Amino acid sequence: MARTPDADLPSLWTHEPHDLLEFRAGTAVADIETASTPGFTGKKKDSGDLQDERNEVFADLQEMLYAGSRAGDTRKILLVLQGMDTAGKGGIVKHVVGAGNPQGIRYSSFGKPTEEELAHDYLWRIRKALPPAGHIGVFDRSHYEDVLAVRVHDLVPPEVWGRRYDEINAFERELVDDGTTIVKCAMFVSLDEQKKRLAKRLRRPDKFWKFNPADIDERELWPKYQEAYQAVLDRTSTEYAPWHVIPCDRKWYSRLAITELLIEALDGLDLAWPPPDFDVKAEKRRLKTA
Amino acid sequence: MARTPDADLPSLWTHEPHDLLEFRAGTAVADIETASTPGFTGKKKDSGDLQDERNEVFADLQEMLYAGSRAGDTRKILLVLQGMDTAGKGGIVKHVVGAGNPQGIRYSSFGKPTEEELAHDYLWRIRKALPPAGHIGVFDRSHYEDVLAVRVHDLVPPEVWGRRYDEINAFERELVDDGTTIVKCAMFVSLDEQKKRLAKRLRRPDKFWKFNPADIDERELWPKYQEAYQAVLDRTSTEYAPWHVIPCDRKWYSRLAITELLIEALDGLDLAWPPPDFDVKAEKRRLKTA
Repeated sequence: MARTPDADLPSLWTHEPHDLLEFRAGTAVADIETASTPGFTGKKKDSGDLQDERNEVFADLQEMLYAGSRAGDTRKILLVLQGMDTAGKGGIVKHVVGAGNPQGIRYSSFGKPTEEELAHDYLWRIRKALPPAGHIGVFDRSHYEDVLAVRVHDLVPPEVWGRRYDEINAFERELVDDGTTIVKCAMFVSLDEQKKRLAKRLRRPDKFWKFNPADIDERELWPKYQEAYQAVLDRTSTEYAPWHVIPCDRKWYSRLAITELLIEALDGLDLAWPPPDFDVKAEKRRLKTA
Repeated sequence: MARTPDADLPSLWTHEPHDLLEFRAGTAVADIETASTPGFTGKKKDSGDLQDERNEVFADLQEMLYAGSRAGDTRKILLVLQGMDTAGKGGIVKHVVGAGNPQGIRYSSFGKPTEEELAHDYLWRIRKALPPAGHIGVFDRSHYEDVLAVRVHDLVPPEVWGRRYDEINAFERELVDDGTTIVKCAMFVSLDEQKKRLAKRLRRPDKFWKFNPADIDERELWPKYQEAYQAVLDRTSTEYAPWHVIPCDRKWYSRLAITELLIEALDGLDLAWPPPDFDVKAEKRRLKTA
């Protein structure tokens, strides 16, 4: 029997996470309740089993997406993860994306650009990392750094970063026209929760490697980052590539939510196992004597 | 507390899988017992829980490898999977490699070369896919196709593929000198077991996409492939990059075995969480008021 993944929303959700979390014009970043769990009626204790269950649905749908590409379907998914340090981007990669088959995942992180990258347009390194047909691309940070960190740290003049919002919209429009479903997640933690998470990195020898003293300096710039995130949401949440605002103080919630956003995106493609491009009966006969 | 992965071999193994499976000069490919389970005293029913458990050990060690690279350790792992169709390469990627964090995995498959790839030396596309520091590269098929399928199908003259064994040894020597641990797995199924697996692909609509009529034609060439695999094992199993012969008629065994080979490779690096490159106390103080 062919497996048919059950993409139906689990009963612990009141609404599609897409509806609950999509950025709405007028929402102020400063007002985001980072400890909230919109639309989820369960508790943390319910999240473990549910996460396992939904990871499997995600993995099954991912396999169908990949299978389709072998039969000529050129569609792909791009998951964009943006957020302040400790928001939990790495946890999404490990616990959500990690449920998928590495064969169909293209993970890329975008740190400080190299000299070669700086010698090119800011979208150069981004384009190189785009997922091919049938794949799920994962951007751990993204082109949005070029209107976030770059803006906050004055790395280019305002007229340069100021043009980028429209450029990014045009770029994403092109990707969507090419068959990419873009799932953009802006991950928000509170300053307090961030402090706890940084403190943990300073307490545990197995977490030191995740700590960077500059992370503390960035905290001073929180208001400027909030302003920059506000501009990103206001100017680049489009009908074809909307932002989702993910409250991230509770890691279990943000993981469940982003898993559902991916499942919705995959389910929205109406995937099906591709029909054979060969004569099944004839091949069965051939195999018998081969 | 820092997690310290327990890399010790589970008691169901009589010897290190590395010792059990490493290719020994004189071994004939035709004599490989593809349904055997060397060194494993358990049964299939024991394999599920053990696989889950060892997947976690693998994932923890992988994180340490990755963490080390952030502190300047340039070592990396390269897993090379070679085998006839249906040997289970895809299953290793999904069920073994898939346990790792996508952040530190570089998966590449090498199918029929593109026109651009053919316009370059055969190692060109291989070099581009090599894992960077701290990563585990996974080659689903590899440069060995250039002395396997290429040899069997006479795609280049014998004097061309004939030179490649030494070239490949020199190439791998270079990678090892650069800090790569190469784990090469030659995966063997029997002709009968392959027939069953191909039949399954022809029976299940969710497996059609994995079937290619050419796979049946390749069965006619089995003796030529055995000869080509023999030459690969005889000529490219080196002290610095030995081949492992994996019996693959029992998928659960091949998965457990390759998991252990990866754990051994990681454990052999004597990984440790990197020490902080900052003053922990001073940072704790700074964080308090930030």
